[in-house]
Amino acid sequence: MIQKIGERTLGFTDIPRIIGFGSAVGKKEGEGPLSAWFDKIYTDTTMGGETWEKAEAALQKTTVKLAMDAGGIESGDVDFIFAGDLLNQCISSSYGLRDYGIPFLGQYGACSTMAQTLAMAAIAIESGAANIAAAVTSSHFCSAERQFRYPLQYGGQRTPTAQWTVTGSGCAVAAGYRNGLFCGPHDKITASGDINLKRQVGISRVCIGKIIDMGITDANNMGAAMAGAAADTIAAFLRDTGTTQNDYDLILTGDLGKVGTDLMYELLERDNISIQDKHKDCGLLIFDTETQDVHAGGSGCGCSASVLCSYIMKRMRKRELGNVLFVATGALMSPTIVQQGESIPGVAHAVNIITTE
Amino acid sequence: MIQKIGERTLGFTDIPRIIGFGSAVGKKEGEGPLSAWFDKIYTDTTMGGETWEKAEAALQKTTVKLAMDAGGIESGDVDFIFAGDLLNQCISSSYGLRDYGIPFLGQYGACSTMAQTLAMAAIAIESGAANIAAAVTSSHFCSAERQFRYPLQYGGQRTPTAQWTVTGSGCAVAAGYRNGLFCGPHDKITASGDINLKRQVGISRVCIGKIIDMGITDANNMGAAMAGAAADTIAAFLRDTGTTQNDYDLILTGDLGKVGTDLMYELLERDNISIQDKHKDCGLLIFDTETQDVHAGGSGCGCSASVLCSYIMKRMRKRELGNVLFVATGALMSPTIVQQGESIPGVAHAVNIITTE
Repeated sequence: MIQKIGERTLGFTDIPRIIGFGSAVGKKEGEGPLSAWFDKIYTDTTMGGETWEKAEAALQKTTVKLAMDAGGIESGDVDFIFAGDLLNQCISSSYGLRDYGIPFLGQYGACSTMAQTLAMAAIAIESGAANIAAAVTSSHFCSAERQFRYPLQYGGQRTPTAQWTVTGSGCAVAAGYRNGLFCGPHDKITASGDINLKRQVGISRVCIGKIIDMGITDANNMGAAMAGAAADTIAAFLRDTGTTQNDYDLILTGDLGKVGTDLMYELLERDNISIQDKHKDCGLLIFDTETQDVHAGGSGCGCSASVLCSYIMKRMRKRELGNVLFVATGALMSPTIVQQGESIPGVAHAVNIITTE
Repeated sequence: MIQKIGERTLGFTDIPRIIGFGSAVGKKEGEGPLSAWFDKIYTDTTMGGETWEKAEAALQKTTVKLAMDAGGIESGDVDFIFAGDLLNQCISSSYGLRDYGIPFLGQYGACSTMAQTLAMAAIAIESGAANIAAAVTSSHFCSAERQFRYPLQYGGQRTPTAQWTVTGSGCAVAAGYRNGLFCGPHDKITASGDINLKRQVGISRVCIGKIIDMGITDANNMGAAMAGAAADTIAAFLRDTGTTQNDYDLILTGDLGKVGTDLMYELLERDNISIQDKHKDCGLLIFDTETQDVHAGGSGCGCSASVLCSYIMKRMRKRELGNVLFVATGALMSPTIVQQGESIPGVAHAVNIITTE
């Protein structure tokens, strides 16, 4: 059952369970601090594709397969797939997933999309609309640079506030769980080997974000553009649930990077909210910002997706983490509208992921 | 309550009610056969904006206000807005809606987006996740031509199979309805004047589409690219629900145009399904294809949105139509991937809209 909590948080009494997840990244990400946690590291950034767009589509195709395999299910068992990416018309999702034949619901929340797809999957499952739903996003450094900034061959200089778009994808597959049984093909899921009936990971609450515009017009300072949305959603979630940072093992933002993180702290302090002790940012976890020349950190839909669906969920399965508030943030702009002088609105969605007995 | 019907159709026992809807279109659409049905016709295609992208954003902002006003509610009463458009990074939605402060869930299904947003709004309401949810999409001829084809100044020739992107937007606001009461601010809704408690319009069933690739590579023949998806979803819906065209007053596709419509009929005939007697296409309703030089018909997210949220829903309110199967179709491509030689996958979602006593 879905319960409204406070102003705009939703609670799921049955807690949809994440039965499988998978991650795949490029060479640079595979050389970073989380190297050991990814399921697949491509050393060739074309992923065997002819173009970078096709490479990115291949990333999504790969992680969906990894997640379904981990959950012991096949594409025919999945009721809906919620998918999105940063490319124009979300082609990584449509081309990456077209062979699976899964009812498809494209989502667009820029770099907040992984939280959005997880939230939509959880709502679909908890409402009974789906037994099993998948959530997947991706990004690719080369396709993103060409589309949002300059072709790589141009050799454009990067500003200190710029972030490095992660080449990667993450997919999570969730299933309903009622009276000790998984909804859908219970036997297939429990036979997968990955599922320990007593030690699971599930989605307990979500909070959908509002569009927040901080007036930032610098397309090389996305962290700042998204900080206001992150602060707004985190404050709303904590207020709605009557919790503080002390109730969480980790508050994990998507890709604010260094600049955005500091700004978010400052905005939250104005509401007397401190999260510093429990906060990490996927964009700062995936790269070593000292040695990997990524300036303010990693970014892109694939950043939070690949970190969540590897390092975070694997540690939750091991019980090294128990209660995680995942808050992915997106900058809802396009190069066209920024060139027209517009500021960059942001959005952030929160997904509370917990371990269950 | 949400009930699964057959393979992939969902039924809503409480039937979320459409409490308000609104439409706004450009000059050419205002000169077409549906002229008298639109709420607002702009004679200046910039809608007072500085650019065509800002003009399109203004269209969404306008129709959301029209729909909220018709329903007697304000932005603070809306739990979620599901919104999408065709522009890169869906900027018509994010910029058009940023001032409302409504929790925002961007949807991308190309020209299928109006059906997708309505389906998501219905699921959110029926699950209890929302009392009130809005669904809105838009398109604009000038922003679409520049982005998908050529700048207007270039004066590119159009092929006979080409369709004319509609400058328009439609928004529907839906509310839960239980035990004779609207969920949320019942008194505000019933005081609106637009709501007749005994003669309403609601969403009874939805069917989410799969990605179907017909192998079409001609970006000027979108109707053909989408016909397979339309046929697949219509066939699935009729099979799941055990109904035929005779059970509907109207089967309304989004923007298949002439070429796509004929191809869809042919594909459905292979499954021994005939819908010709009850079928209309929004792309063929909105323009007079004989006199308005639109070749194969209208297209774009705003085509089905503006036709549904004017001509169709107003006729349903008047009881001239009772049971409508709305099937919007989308071509999930981008110019980049088509230039890379890829075929164009399509998707179609079905929403069954009915009158209720």
